[in-house]
Amino acid sequence: MTKKLTDIIKEYPDAVRTEKPLIHHITNYVTVNDCANITLAAGASPVMADDPEEAEDIVSLASALVINMGTLNKRTIESMITAGKAAKKKNIPVIFDPVGAGAGTLRNETAARILKEVRPSVLKGNVSEILFISGVSSGAKGVDVSENDKNIREEIICEKIKKLALKTGCVVAATGEKDIISDGKRVIYVENGHRMMSDITGTGCMTTSLTAVFCSVSNDLLLGTAAGILYMGLAGEKAFNEAGNRGSGSFRTALIDQIYNTSRKNIEENAKIFER
Amino acid sequence: MTKKLTDIIKEYPDAVRTEKPLIHHITNYVTVNDCANITLAAGASPVMADDPEEAEDIVSLASALVINMGTLNKRTIESMITAGKAAKKKNIPVIFDPVGAGAGTLRNETAARILKEVRPSVLKGNVSEILFISGVSSGAKGVDVSENDKNIREEIICEKIKKLALKTGCVVAATGEKDIISDGKRVIYVENGHRMMSDITGTGCMTTSLTAVFCSVSNDLLLGTAAGILYMGLAGEKAFNEAGNRGSGSFRTALIDQIYNTSRKNIEENAKIFER
Amino acid sequence: MTKKLTDIIKEYPDAVRTEKPLIHHITNYVTVNDCANITLAAGASPVMADDPEEAEDIVSLASALVINMGTLNKRTIESMITAGKAAKKKNIPVIFDPVGAGAGTLRNETAARILKEVRPSVLKGNVSEILFISGVSSGAKGVDVSENDKNIREEIICEKIKKLALKTGCVVAATGEKDIISDGKRVIYVENGHRMMSDITGTGCMTTSLTAVFCSVSNDLLLGTAAGILYMGLAGEKAFNEAGNRGSGSFRTALIDQIYNTSRKNIEENAKIFER
Repeated sequence: MTKKLTDIIKEYPDAVRTEKPLIHHITNYVTVNDCANITLAAGASPVMADDPEEAEDIVSLASALVINMGTLNKRTIESMITAGKAAKKKNIPVIFDPVGAGAGTLRNETAARILKEVRPSVLKGNVSEILFISGVSSGAKGVDVSENDKNIREEIICEKIKKLALKTGCVVAATGEKDIISDGKRVIYVENGHRMMSDITGTGCMTTSLTAVFCSVSNDLLLGTAAGILYMGLAGEKAFNEAGNRGSGSFRTALIDQIYNTSRKNIEENAKIFER
Repeated sequence: MTKKLTDIIKEYPDAVRTEKPLIHHITNYVTVNDCANITLAAGASPVMADDPEEAEDIVSLASALVINMGTLNKRTIESMITAGKAAKKKNIPVIFDPVGAGAGTLRNETAARILKEVRPSVLKGNVSEILFISGVSSGAKGVDVSENDKNIREEIICEKIKKLALKTGCVVAATGEKDIISDGKRVIYVENGHRMMSDITGTGCMTTSLTAVFCSVSNDLLLGTAAGILYMGLAGEKAFNEAGNRGSGSFRTALIDQIYNTSRKNIEENAKIFER
Repeated sequence: MTKKLTDIIKEYPDAVRTEKPLIHHITNYVTVNDCANITLAAGASPVMADDPEEAEDIVSLASALVINMGTLNKRTIESMITAGKAAKKKNIPVIFDPVGAGAGTLRNETAARILKEVRPSVLKGNVSEILFISGVSSGAKGVDVSENDKNIREEIICEKIKKLALKTGCVVAATGEKDIISDGKRVIYVENGHRMMSDITGTGCMTTSLTAVFCSVSNDLLLGTAAGILYMGLAGEKAFNEAGNRGSGSFRTALIDQIYNTSRKNIEENAKIFER
């Protein structure tokens, strides 16, 4: 089965480079530059317009939409809803990253509202955010995974993800020690990545952008989501080998380099992706 | 003629380092950090205040103003207009980059409004944006040059740029395979640059910032604009030699390094700038 | 006395890595990514929410608050005040960086309002900003130190800082050729750093973030502030040795690397910190 997954996924990067899909982002101002650069590194084209007045115009040009609620305000929340509805209507993938869900009322209500009003195609967060939305955790520590949530057993997380996928109709992905992705029926595990990835900001956001990139060229959103997470994990491992000893500034640069240099050989030899 | 242009332009970097002009930016939040760093790398000083309430105060301290509409909203549109008018009144160069012109009504109307109400000194965009404003293209693909526009013949582009310059009173620059700059009478071509520059975000925005930097020390805005585009192109070529094989993250870092290390020798030996 | 200061301060990085404090930032969109990455490089966890509606919720999770007024608008000013008051009530350190104080009415009034309504724990700016708030300078050149202020005698600056500390109840720090920190009684000088640090954007903002990081694990805010400034200065020196000859892009990456690699040995051998 592993072979089958990688055989499909290893075709995605070339498809991106051929189609050069436009990925619309309504995202936070902390990691927006990283998201744009990772989208370009993967061969797609990013656009980051966030005013409600142009949300629909930009969606009409796009092949996928990222809604990332890392920094929120009234104006951008409206843009997220408007763009999200337009994207669903146009039938392009909507990837929702509920950054910081659990950290406060505004975030919690916004996440709930987006899930209800937009009905995203993919819900992708860290394990704390996803567990909070599942109703079983007090949520992230700010925007990072909490220590408590690191100790929850894998089977429990997996069960919660499947249920949440069925309830919301989203492909649900929770990133953590292992990454778990499910559409409610199938469950995919990704075990690539490196712990240094949590020493820089934006790894999660960039993974979300990559997920949108690959979902835009895949007709299987479960695999498109797994691909985004897998390629970022592989890049993290190679970036660590390349630059980890120099420090987190160099690691960040190397991470984008490695997405730029994504190769079939690397996925064939190093992918740890399993369906169970 | 080539010699004459480079002889003038090669003096600009030292003038910048001596005068350390303050360059006010009202710009997007995607590439703002890159714009600040490239401005500093060239020896000038950036300031990025974008609230309408302080637009005039900051302009009063500045030697040039960048209006970059990469990300737009009601508040920043007002700042652009207010700061732009104040800068024109003060008689400092106003460089307008109509990012994403053609991508939707808000952008199209804002570009038209800035051209009419501010009357910028320089209008600098990619070839799709400039052709859209000229009325001959359906505009950019999001914020990138469209495939269609890549195939329009150079003479046609050149004619449109000259006409647009005469109509608007701006120096008009369109960047693409070749970069074309005109004030309606003279036309300058720049043929430096590297295609890897389109693999990172912000190359266009950084070029706009550099254009403002050099216009602030030049009494010839046509040459100041050509200088911004030329130095970025030269830096792109050297950055590719330095770091291109590592990937787009490293290339981005090297690009700023190369502006920091701008040398007379490089422009003397490698500049491809022509007046026709 | 030097020995005593470094002996205390050299314990801080380990304390940060153990406690992993959450540092809330309401800051500018120019250098926000650098601030997040430097906070992570030091072993703490950054969060950058800036909407007034969630200001109190996020503060309730945080161990320190940064208020950086690099880019201002009505919405974020309200967030700064609300978050600042909540942080003071919760008794966590509030570090205020009055970026661009002196550059215009909005900034000047906002700085005054924050000092009065929030009463920050630490006021940290460049020497022009601090002198402006002291009433003895016309303020920064945009966001950089003015040439005039570079020539003011050290003793005069020191006197002004002490007085301002007594008047405001803040630990006051002014960065410049030498960095001076005082709580009104004690005065600490830091003489580390490298002039290349002013060739990139965000060095001041990152220093403010580090100050918040170290204040969150120290019960002595004077030393916590000195530690933020000292570790940044040491990192600047090492980054220059590492990457200075390559250019400002590489220097910026190396600066974050060096904070990530902060070592006891470096502070023991190279710290130039004095109490007078």
